[in-house]
Amino acid sequence: MNALDLDTVLLSQDRDCLEILDQTLLPGTVRVLHLSKLEDIWEAIRTLRVRGAPAIGVCAAYALALEASRSRAEDAECFLRDLRTAKDYLATSRPTAVNLFWALERMERTARENARLPIPELKERLFAEAHRIREEDVQISRNIGRIGLGLLHHGDGILTHCNAGTLATAKYGTATAPIYLALEQGWQDLRVYCDETRPLLQGARLTAFEMQAAGVDTILLCDNMASLLMKRGKVNIIFVGCDRVARNGDAANKIGTSGVAILARHYGIPFYVCAPSSTIDMSIADGDGIPIEERAAEEVTEMWYKERMAPEGVKVFNPAFDVTDHSLITGIITEKGLCRAPYEDAFRSLGIE
Amino acid sequence: MNALDLDTVLLSQDRDCLEILDQTLLPGTVRVLHLSKLEDIWEAIRTLRVRGAPAIGVCAAYALALEASRSRAEDAECFLRDLRTAKDYLATSRPTAVNLFWALERMERTARENARLPIPELKERLFAEAHRIREEDVQISRNIGRIGLGLLHHGDGILTHCNAGTLATAKYGTATAPIYLALEQGWQDLRVYCDETRPLLQGARLTAFEMQAAGVDTILLCDNMASLLMKRGKVNIIFVGCDRVARNGDAANKIGTSGVAILARHYGIPFYVCAPSSTIDMSIADGDGIPIEERAAEEVTEMWYKERMAPEGVKVFNPAFDVTDHSLITGIITEKGLCRAPYEDAFRSLGIE
Repeated sequence: MNALDLDTVLLSQDRDCLEILDQTLLPGTVRVLHLSKLEDIWEAIRTLRVRGAPAIGVCAAYALALEASRSRAEDAECFLRDLRTAKDYLATSRPTAVNLFWALERMERTARENARLPIPELKERLFAEAHRIREEDVQISRNIGRIGLGLLHHGDGILTHCNAGTLATAKYGTATAPIYLALEQGWQDLRVYCDETRPLLQGARLTAFEMQAAGVDTILLCDNMASLLMKRGKVNIIFVGCDRVARNGDAANKIGTSGVAILARHYGIPFYVCAPSSTIDMSIADGDGIPIEERAAEEVTEMWYKERMAPEGVKVFNPAFDVTDHSLITGIITEKGLCRAPYEDAFRSLGIE
Repeated sequence: MNALDLDTVLLSQDRDCLEILDQTLLPGTVRVLHLSKLEDIWEAIRTLRVRGAPAIGVCAAYALALEASRSRAEDAECFLRDLRTAKDYLATSRPTAVNLFWALERMERTARENARLPIPELKERLFAEAHRIREEDVQISRNIGRIGLGLLHHGDGILTHCNAGTLATAKYGTATAPIYLALEQGWQDLRVYCDETRPLLQGARLTAFEMQAAGVDTILLCDNMASLLMKRGKVNIIFVGCDRVARNGDAANKIGTSGVAILARHYGIPFYVCAPSSTIDMSIADGDGIPIEERAAEEVTEMWYKERMAPEGVKVFNPAFDVTDHSLITGIITEKGLCRAPYEDAFRSLGIE
């Protein structure tokens, strides 16, 4: 099995269901769900069976095309009404997922713009648009990967945090894209170090899984082991994903990323953020403007465990993200090009506004 | 229950076994093991049922006294041979634990120096010496606590890593001693932040447990959350324990400590190592001379979990310790006094040779 055979979301050959890799069962079980009912797809998004902003967007687009294909409407008005009902419903699955809304809007706009076409052809256009959303996502990852590959050297040790892998996108991932591109070019001498990424263990469960499946030399470590690993000279470069980047280059990503960046600075290791340009938010001046979600204490004290691992009633600090200061970032890799400080100028010069 | 009622290791009243609080069962279960066989005590040290350098030292001393008390030797030479056999065996239980070797050496020296005594009296001397090691440890912690308390201010937030608490010593702990001393003096306004300390979760299971039991405002966090916590200004001072300090002040402690020190330096937070002088090894020039134990992959991939949380066969980097460079340490608190750089001079001026 190769990780790139692991498709997060596909439309089935006969276009009667979505094939969704159930990521809640990884790494123990690789099970592909065949979901034809909209309710089941909604549930799959809701319960993180499919996850990662780009992958959620692709899933929602396919789900809407699938549901629309079953509409019995005989005129455009009724068809658009059916479409909107399905869209509004899907939008409730992950209320903060920007890519979800973006993909759903784009699908509806496609339907509106083609409303004069016969209904069967309109349905085809929606399938085509969903495919296009997926293909564009693959292309974004490939471009990030190509730029990142230019920063790699044979024999490098690469550290990554959380999962910004193929499992979070349509294909290739963002932080993992340089590694997949290297593999495609026949490189066989990279080592990938995966921070396990407490408390949700995306590094252990997902990144280590897909990297190992891809045939890379994969080494798992606890988050607090990265300092020693770097001190021993095992890490040549760091790639991380991101959820949102401010105008000045401050980058929000999974909790712990800022700590990795500080260690990298201390040990003199280059630290790169892989960011589709859609994650760069020029309306936010700096990281202080990025809200940090705090999550339930049970994720730290109980989740995954046979029994509770902390005293009853103890307070828990459980932020889901932190912001890495732009001064700690060697470069931000977008699909449009590699940005270096000052980031605002670099973003604008790539046409990111 | 008050944490200071929790004895880590005691000799039973009728001196036929050791009473060891099984720390692998905390915080859910408070169970005291009654171990009489040397193999079982070895296993208890090996598997961290008793842990923390000072507590291991106390445990090893009692174990040796107990085993020696059963020797059937009728002359000093045979008795010392039996003792050495037990000593060499115990020394294999934790390869990085200098207190273990120190306590065992001290016990053997006591035996050698009293070799002219009748065997029964010699056996008594060994019990007495083990008791003395324990009492001295309590006094050492109190002294460290008094010095550390002098560095605290009302309202401080204190971060600690792993467990250098009362559970790691005979009483008071080392890194926690300033907090216990503050409590004894009626301070009620400290906050203690406990890194959970993967993979063995000593911070979540032990430090959070004993701090909460002691009535301090206790907040648990994952190791990778310390950077954000510091950035938010919540941490005023850091106290950590140590397993071994080199002549130049490089300090080996639980994996992740060096990362905490690097973050502290980045955010300008004072970072103190609490070190009984017995952990200072003047024979080692610097941290490169301190061996780092690597432990089993399963601690990272399976331990505590309902099911395996990483792909089968993945490589795991699982060092138990790291070395914090002396340049990152604000001060080293020994029971003899507070040392600041240059550490070799400071150690010698306190009579540590």
